[in-house]
Amino acid sequence: MGEAPTGADAVAPPTGADAVVLPIAVDAMGGDHAPKAIVAGARQAAEELGIPVVLVGRPGELGDTGGLEVVPASEVIAMDDDPGQGVRRKKDSSLVRAAEAVRDGKAAAMVSAGNTGATMASALLRMGRIRGIARPAIATPIPRPGTTPTVLLDAGANAECSPQMLVQFAQMGAAYVTARYATPTPTVGLLSIGEERSKGTPLVKETHALLVEMDGIDFVGNVEGRDLLPGTVDVVVTDGFTGNVVLKALEGALRYLMGAVVEVFDTDDATRQAAEVLVPHLAPLAAAFDPDNTGGAVLLGVDGVCVISHGSSTPRAIVSAVQVAHQAATGGLVQRLKLAVAGR
Amino acid sequence: MGEAPTGADAVAPPTGADAVVLPIAVDAMGGDHAPKAIVAGARQAAEELGIPVVLVGRPGELGDTGGLEVVPASEVIAMDDDPGQGVRRKKDSSLVRAAEAVRDGKAAAMVSAGNTGATMASALLRMGRIRGIARPAIATPIPRPGTTPTVLLDAGANAECSPQMLVQFAQMGAAYVTARYATPTPTVGLLSIGEERSKGTPLVKETHALLVEMDGIDFVGNVEGRDLLPGTVDVVVTDGFTGNVVLKALEGALRYLMGAVVEVFDTDDATRQAAEVLVPHLAPLAAAFDPDNTGGAVLLGVDGVCVISHGSSTPRAIVSAVQVAHQAATGGLVQRLKLAVAGR
Repeated sequence: MGEAPTGADAVAPPTGADAVVLPIAVDAMGGDHAPKAIVAGARQAAEELGIPVVLVGRPGELGDTGGLEVVPASEVIAMDDDPGQGVRRKKDSSLVRAAEAVRDGKAAAMVSAGNTGATMASALLRMGRIRGIARPAIATPIPRPGTTPTVLLDAGANAECSPQMLVQFAQMGAAYVTARYATPTPTVGLLSIGEERSKGTPLVKETHALLVEMDGIDFVGNVEGRDLLPGTVDVVVTDGFTGNVVLKALEGALRYLMGAVVEVFDTDDATRQAAEVLVPHLAPLAAAFDPDNTGGAVLLGVDGVCVISHGSSTPRAIVSAVQVAHQAATGGLVQRLKLAVAGR
Repeated sequence: MGEAPTGADAVAPPTGADAVVLPIAVDAMGGDHAPKAIVAGARQAAEELGIPVVLVGRPGELGDTGGLEVVPASEVIAMDDDPGQGVRRKKDSSLVRAAEAVRDGKAAAMVSAGNTGATMASALLRMGRIRGIARPAIATPIPRPGTTPTVLLDAGANAECSPQMLVQFAQMGAAYVTARYATPTPTVGLLSIGEERSKGTPLVKETHALLVEMDGIDFVGNVEGRDLLPGTVDVVVTDGFTGNVVLKALEGALRYLMGAVVEVFDTDDATRQAAEVLVPHLAPLAAAFDPDNTGGAVLLGVDGVCVISHGSSTPRAIVSAVQVAHQAATGGLVQRLKLAVAGR
């Protein structure tokens, strides 16, 4: 894969009152509940948060867009399409057009709840990689009630990684946490099976040795599975295989446990009455772990902002994703990533 | 490492009313609360379950053993000792002596809540490997309320694995589930990042191809992180790095969530009253996921039964572990493993 054009390397993102605020390009056709839930979420984001949004998709299928601008795209990459083929063959798809809008400076960021692999491929092929980044990674927030989330990467973009890739993930993850949560010096942990640097696979041991020597990030050493929820560091670095498995395991367990508790609450009249007292107190906890509120994952390393919302996104999930995209763009995420991997 | 003596390969374990019932050798010195909690658990197992137990450790430090026989051992391998060095240097340690009791036919199984690495090393060096097994693996149950647990292996014995090792883990895991839960043909899944056989690392893809071709196990294909809790298969096979990370992540998340819910219950008088109604209904769920009830992990592939209880084991955890050890021994676990890897 060739180097992407990176002529804008030294140009800081526009800021200040006079700057043009670019819209967020939302893939209206991607997701289990598209286009209805996506359009509803995009409208809500524009109306409630005042964030400019453009929809990308088939104009005739979007229903009432509430006056949102539509970037027409005649094709749709399905959830089960092969990502590479989909992007190569469906050049007029909503995903490809959304990525092009970012590349062409017509949108500040793209958001999709569609085929994750195709979202990554669209962003990578159309926006290009940031110069010096070996491979983009997916950064996913794990909620920490009461404080900023722990961001884990890679959540699944790269099943196999080299130590050099993991070092860049550490740099990108720290830059992302700073851009998104304004944490000045995020703590970074390397996921392993023991705190000692002698523990883990050769990949982990070599990465550990490199991170210890590295300036510019606050590497606290190895962390373990139990340090993910609740998180003990701001950034957790791991390969995309381990990251994907562990995130899906936590998601599945949370969904199961919440369902089991709700079922217990509904046992009989006495439990239903007791639950009425408790539910308002439990609501903040449930809200903290509701995937619709976390705002989705961000693809780090491409030369533009790309937010990946989960496939079953509701309108609320899209609102959160648009907000994350907007924050990342206005917070100068891409510029921060460029500086981080350049060691500045 | 040389082949272990396996002269007993063809000898089935003793059964029937006239058979001598060998005791379970419990390492009285291993665990955060040793020896007090361990001795208490061993006594309880003997008294309540009628399972014969011998304690292994320093006789003068065990307090009232309630008449349990003590196998004397003058040394202790500490929780933070280097496993290999500990086993080589402390030949009169409780862990080594417990493993020798199994090797010498004086105990049916060993149980320890001590240093996990040293427990594995003691079992491996003293009992030897089962002929044909490349590497032993740790099999850990993940509770499934209402049915038998999902057994995951490897939970951390081997950070790096080959496809051939994972295939043996599948065979051993299925044999273990049959021995412990009487499931005639356990379903086996391979942990990956997508259901398609094209997904995952080269290790996973090669293992998938081997498992598809294999007779004697019910391989259902790849499973994902979300298939662990609640489990969708009887056996989940993975490398020891991924297995350890994901199990610790689930343990940590469960502990955190239960703590958070208990805290909400204790908000004020109204919530405490409501909680009183609900707690009895929630108790079975909490009990199902209480690590003290799951009975610990089993080291599969050594030529004897070795149960690893968690470091912070309470007396109840030791009772569970002794029960698991007893079931494994009387269920002919080692013989089943021998037959499974021999393809019979």
